[in-house]
Amino acid sequence: MPYNLAAPERDIEELVVRRAEVFREKQGINLLTGHCAHTIDSGNRIVSGSTLDDKKFELPYDRLLIATGGNPIVPELPGFDLPGIITLKTLGDGRYLKTILKTTAVKKAVLVGMGYINLEMCEALVSLGIDVDMVKPGPIFLPWLEPSMAQSIKEEIESRQVGIHAGHTIERIEKTGDRLQVICPDLKLAGDLVIVGIGIRPNSAMAADAGLELSVGQSIATDRRACTSDGNIYAAGDCADAYHVVSGQKTWIPLALRANRAGWAVADNICGKNAELDGVAGTAVFKVFDFEVARTGLTAAEAAEAGFEPVENMIKARSKAHGHPGSSPIQVNLVGDKKTGRLLGAQMTGKDGVAHRINGPAVALQCGMTVKQYSQTDLAYAPPIGPTWDPTLTAANQLLKKLGSSPD
Amino acid sequence: MPYNLAAPERDIEELVVRRAEVFREKQGINLLTGHCAHTIDSGNRIVSGSTLDDKKFELPYDRLLIATGGNPIVPELPGFDLPGIITLKTLGDGRYLKTILKTTAVKKAVLVGMGYINLEMCEALVSLGIDVDMVKPGPIFLPWLEPSMAQSIKEEIESRQVGIHAGHTIERIEKTGDRLQVICPDLKLAGDLVIVGIGIRPNSAMAADAGLELSVGQSIATDRRACTSDGNIYAAGDCADAYHVVSGQKTWIPLALRANRAGWAVADNICGKNAELDGVAGTAVFKVFDFEVARTGLTAAEAAEAGFEPVENMIKARSKAHGHPGSSPIQVNLVGDKKTGRLLGAQMTGKDGVAHRINGPAVALQCGMTVKQYSQTDLAYAPPIGPTWDPTLTAANQLLKKLGSSPD
Repeated sequence: MPYNLAAPERDIEELVVRRAEVFREKQGINLLTGHCAHTIDSGNRIVSGSTLDDKKFELPYDRLLIATGGNPIVPELPGFDLPGIITLKTLGDGRYLKTILKTTAVKKAVLVGMGYINLEMCEALVSLGIDVDMVKPGPIFLPWLEPSMAQSIKEEIESRQVGIHAGHTIERIEKTGDRLQVICPDLKLAGDLVIVGIGIRPNSAMAADAGLELSVGQSIATDRRACTSDGNIYAAGDCADAYHVVSGQKTWIPLALRANRAGWAVADNICGKNAELDGVAGTAVFKVFDFEVARTGLTAAEAAEAGFEPVENMIKARSKAHGHPGSSPIQVNLVGDKKTGRLLGAQMTGKDGVAHRINGPAVALQCGMTVKQYSQTDLAYAPPIGPTWDPTLTAANQLLKKLGSSPD
Repeated sequence: MPYNLAAPERDIEELVVRRAEVFREKQGINLLTGHCAHTIDSGNRIVSGSTLDDKKFELPYDRLLIATGGNPIVPELPGFDLPGIITLKTLGDGRYLKTILKTTAVKKAVLVGMGYINLEMCEALVSLGIDVDMVKPGPIFLPWLEPSMAQSIKEEIESRQVGIHAGHTIERIEKTGDRLQVICPDLKLAGDLVIVGIGIRPNSAMAADAGLELSVGQSIATDRRACTSDGNIYAAGDCADAYHVVSGQKTWIPLALRANRAGWAVADNICGKNAELDGVAGTAVFKVFDFEVARTGLTAAEAAEAGFEPVENMIKARSKAHGHPGSSPIQVNLVGDKKTGRLLGAQMTGKDGVAHRINGPAVALQCGMTVKQYSQTDLAYAPPIGPTWDPTLTAANQLLKKLGSSPD
């Protein structure tokens, strides 16, 4: 949505991958829009709810898939329900914001939260000539990044005259004249609109009411077959948990690829083909202005929490070969386990050649490779695409020194 | 060198990563330039040779590293020794060509061979406004690529008015007036210069004379420690062989990263630290005009030869997410083994997002992953960098259908 919103000539409807009619007419699926499910009677295997015009319905099932997704978190603070305060989740949210951007003279926006979506929104709004302030209570900008890497990105964003205000408790939002004001004890930020992007919560209440087991962050607990604690009920998407391939522990990382993949697996399992999911590495990437930021696996802090003995090392490399023009810096931080030598995670930033480069470490995590094994991988080299030693290999070579006498 | 040659403002000397003085003065290494080694007496552990002014020398050793590299193959045909016929190997070759390009009005060049280097040279020369014809005896342009992928690249190159003449036996080169003519039975191609880029041969004659075992393509046979058949002699770089991580068999793929890495391993081994090399996947990437072309592992033909039962499948995807502007096609061909389900290789072409994307499959090959395991990897997604399912994942999902009931 942020990319679509940045392009006034693009219709928001372009984001629809497949319309309801296709399910109904081409695939013969009884797709009931306007039907809100309220309860699952798992004993009798019946879902019941009501339609938009308040007619009750009951749907019996043999197997059920819960794919209720997540909903944006909105703080329960005064003023967060005022008009002009926007979350970005549904296509309706996008339509609403696109209409505001088209029909009113938005000069200034305040973004509450500094996650992927708000960083993308920040770029989108700046590209439309709108002044942006970003604010959040937490003191650290991109806390999952090595500090000097986070600093590079912060400076890039600030160079576009965006205000980044981390560490400000938000008390309320007030309407002042035509504008909204986000009010902190020590800061007031006014804007024509406020976008709240502080994360999502899994929509798991109905599952919990039906007695299904919940998991990390109140997501619905699922096994490797995406089956819930009730053998007839599956859950997939942002409402469901997953195994983390590094820690082996349950995690909840609501991202598109896993959601999509889990949907396929459930279809297979319901149809009697056994499909198991290997788990997620938490690979994520976003662009903000000229920077690409990517991560996979665990940060050192997350690794320590998961019981590893993390050692990390950050290196600086170039995006192209020695002497090749147009090269830019790339920073790579790798995390390894002192006890086993295993690669635990990677974070990367740079203006060029970061986004897809994270896939090498991501595959390595899926295999449980050690840092040493990764350091031996045969990665691509050509002068316009990188140095002879890919930056992730240089990072692995350097981290090996810190890991010292680790096995393998 | 091709990239440097394309840029008249760049000094060819920029390509020097480290000058002899640094080795001598900063590192205290007795670096003897102008000394040509002729023979290795492995019994008495003495290398002997002569200097440029024809003084003989003898150097005793405890451990010896042979890093003699490779030399461009020049066909033993009439006229291939004429002035203006150029191979690209040493910095001297680059200096020579750069001088020609600067001081003479080169209007037309003929490139013999259609490998990576000549394709890069083709782009370099075209960027300088020089007309280019490429010619080779083999009938197929880029034979290691799936035909429709090779065709895309051929069309891209031909759209720059480059003549691609595959399947023409070269008989000789003649000097005709100011020009050189490459003469085939059915074709004559005239140019101000001719670049011969048909591959290299390992410089292994001295090693063979010393009784060392040779390997694939007459490269020097080495074990995982980069040690030759003589326990006191190591070999690294384009003169030495390697294990292929997919076939487990010996191979000879002279590329920069392996050369570099083997050098490090030899240093460790000579110093008493045991260093073993895992082998190569044959990962390679090059750019030609707007196209990126990448490969890793085995082609179907190579896989069949190595004893696998290869199944391959080519898919077309986009470089960015559904509806995202500026997206271009990506073609991915994956090769898997019918018997074991193992991923054996990948080839990829496209204008955007190909070069680093090959690293995911490259790491998977190093781990011996099955196609199914690869299809479960958690790869990066963001709208400006690719579809939700990375093209290599879509390729894996499709190949799985062809592999059918393969284990795992």
